[in-house]
Amino acid sequence: MIGEKTEQLLLENQENLVIPAENVATVLYTHGLEHALLVLSKVGYNQIPVLDHEDRFIGVIGLSDVVNKMMGLTGLDVAALENLTVADVMEVNIPCITHNDVEEILHQLVNRPFLPQVDENGVFTGIVTRKEILKSVNHLAHQLERRYDLVEKVTVH
Amino acid sequence: MIGEKTEQLLLENQENLVIPAENVATVLYTHGLEHALLVLSKVGYNQIPVLDHEDRFIGVIGLSDVVNKMMGLTGLDVAALENLTVADVMEVNIPCITHNDVEEILHQLVNRPFLPQVDENGVFTGIVTRKEILKSVNHLAHQLERRYDLVEKVTVH
Repeated sequence: MIGEKTEQLLLENQENLVIPAENVATVLYTHGLEHALLVLSKVGYNQIPVLDHEDRFIGVIGLSDVVNKMMGLTGLDVAALENLTVADVMEVNIPCITHNDVEEILHQLVNRPFLPQVDENGVFTGIVTRKEILKSVNHLAHQLERRYDLVEKVTVH
Repeated sequence: MIGEKTEQLLLENQENLVIPAENVATVLYTHGLEHALLVLSKVGYNQIPVLDHEDRFIGVIGLSDVVNKMMGLTGLDVAALENLTVADVMEVNIPCITHNDVEEILHQLVNRPFLPQVDENGVFTGIVTRKEILKSVNHLAHQLERRYDLVEKVTVH
């Protein structure tokens, strides 16, 4: 359970916490892996969201997922990507958020580089990244003792 | 400036903050790019440290750095990696830490997935990752108002 004032400090810049969908590079699950590799190498992110044709979030794909498919017994083989699509290598069952639940976001970002945000129909609306939450954490860490005296609670035995 | 109690809470599990060098996958700057690609795709990290032959930290290399070299005008070309080494694509001038300065770590991790730690001779001793700092942040966020009453400071006008 995260205290109210802690949460308030973390969310003071909350308008920036979610990067809106229109600013996030994505691929369709039907895209070929060579296309996905091109997108992934250009955006410079480890992983990007995978959507279906109705803009619903269905998984993530990372550079290493594609490169691993190219690793044959005799070395790298680009031809191995032919006829494979994003759906063949994407990771599914990714935790999503629907609103700014700081406790959930902080918890999930320990294990994932970003969290997808979806609306009530599963339509992809944006991502929360470690970068954005770390900006909030810097704000919290710097403001906390500037604004508040931290008075040790009296423990009743 | 981060307050003393905030820093204490963040560092309470500090023995885990740095992942020691022996547990971190690295490459030498003289390694070929095909080898680097193999290591990078297997470890599943976005970037890994690059060392010289005296174990000094000199830069980082990421999957996208290697894949970008394979992107020719006519598509993906593995042959483009031949005769290229890690030194040809690595990123240098990476900020390093020498001790657990929480303020510096929190600040630098906004823009980088991990921070290398080096000793006084520049020898690589480990990394601090966003994952580990986010564990500390979860600890801080959950313990803060459990241990302390946050009393608003009186502003003197």
